[in-house]
Amino acid sequence: MDSLYTDSIKRLIEQLGRLPGIGPKSAERLAFYILHTSKDEALALADAIRAVKEQIRPCKDCFNLAEGPLCPICADPRRDHNTICVVEQPKDLVALEKTGLCNWVYHVLGGHICPLDGIGPADLTIDRLIERVRSGQVREVVMATNPTLDGDGTALHIASLLRGLPVRITRLARGLPAGSTIEYANDKVLADAILGRQTIQ
Amino acid sequence: MDSLYTDSIKRLIEQLGRLPGIGPKSAERLAFYILHTSKDEALALADAIRAVKEQIRPCKDCFNLAEGPLCPICADPRRDHNTICVVEQPKDLVALEKTGLCNWVYHVLGGHICPLDGIGPADLTIDRLIERVRSGQVREVVMATNPTLDGDGTALHIASLLRGLPVRITRLARGLPAGSTIEYANDKVLADAILGRQTIQ
Repeated sequence: MDSLYTDSIKRLIEQLGRLPGIGPKSAERLAFYILHTSKDEALALADAIRAVKEQIRPCKDCFNLAEGPLCPICADPRRDHNTICVVEQPKDLVALEKTGLCNWVYHVLGGHICPLDGIGPADLTIDRLIERVRSGQVREVVMATNPTLDGDGTALHIASLLRGLPVRITRLARGLPAGSTIEYANDKVLADAILGRQTIQ
Repeated sequence: MDSLYTDSIKRLIEQLGRLPGIGPKSAERLAFYILHTSKDEALALADAIRAVKEQIRPCKDCFNLAEGPLCPICADPRRDHNTICVVEQPKDLVALEKTGLCNWVYHVLGGHICPLDGIGPADLTIDRLIERVRSGQVREVVMATNPTLDGDGTALHIASLLRGLPVRITRLARGLPAGSTIEYANDKVLADAILGRQTIQ
């Protein structure tokens, strides 16, 4: 079995198998695809991986993924730079942007406060957020941390630091997820939906 | 939407999305993993892809994937070099080897004869197989092409070229797949099972 693959193929399968959601079978299948495809195409993938690790750095304003000093959103003058939406990770930002409803700018925390994992406020970009708000241009901070214990805790901590500054602090609405059924909603979701009930007429 | 990702991230998502079984959502998820993982780990993957394309070439005897002149199987003196198992692709070889039942060597055709796709006998490594058999050391050639119209056709063509040479020509058994049910087996499978029925006592 061990002699089945040459060293470089073994290494490729092993590396591919580390990717999330790629099991040993899929890693083998992907490796065979890479072996079978043109050299140009395979090297394009290798170079894309290398480029991303060498060129991507945090945006100096919001810590989103950027290639220059600023991310594409912070660099966009048509954006409303007076409203900052606070997210945990760049992928949360992407999910929000895909709705097409956001014209604000962001602040990427880099995670959430989680004492159990040893992640305190100083490990996130909270200081820089407070600075941005203090600079005086910001009218609203929209908390878009995950609706979890840690996410909520992080949002509350930030809100407490912003108290006293002339800025409106909001958070994304809680309630029933669209398309779901009340029958299968859990207590927590129903409680949010009941307490946050909205006027419809 | 277009400004969501920087150029290098867009390119990585696009390249990952070309892999088989990786849709746009998975490509995004993998890209975020690569962005998030350590630089060392990401570059290890990029290098593994590059290495495989630069170091892997066909075995000079059997056309299996090899790093040196010979593949690990052809280079193994404990193998029975007098029995050659003919497969279409390296991944067929891997599937057979995983049974742990094979001690033979292989010959990788590089596909099957398929006039509709413009693939004739000259596009495969058939000539080299005939040469190997002619060299006189080979006692048995086991056809392990796919049990399809094209695979069977390719096996028959090769068998006809080997006719007259002092070599036994066999093919993998046809019949009911283990673990299946007769109720749902199709006519072709049942016909193979009936015609090839085996004595059990």
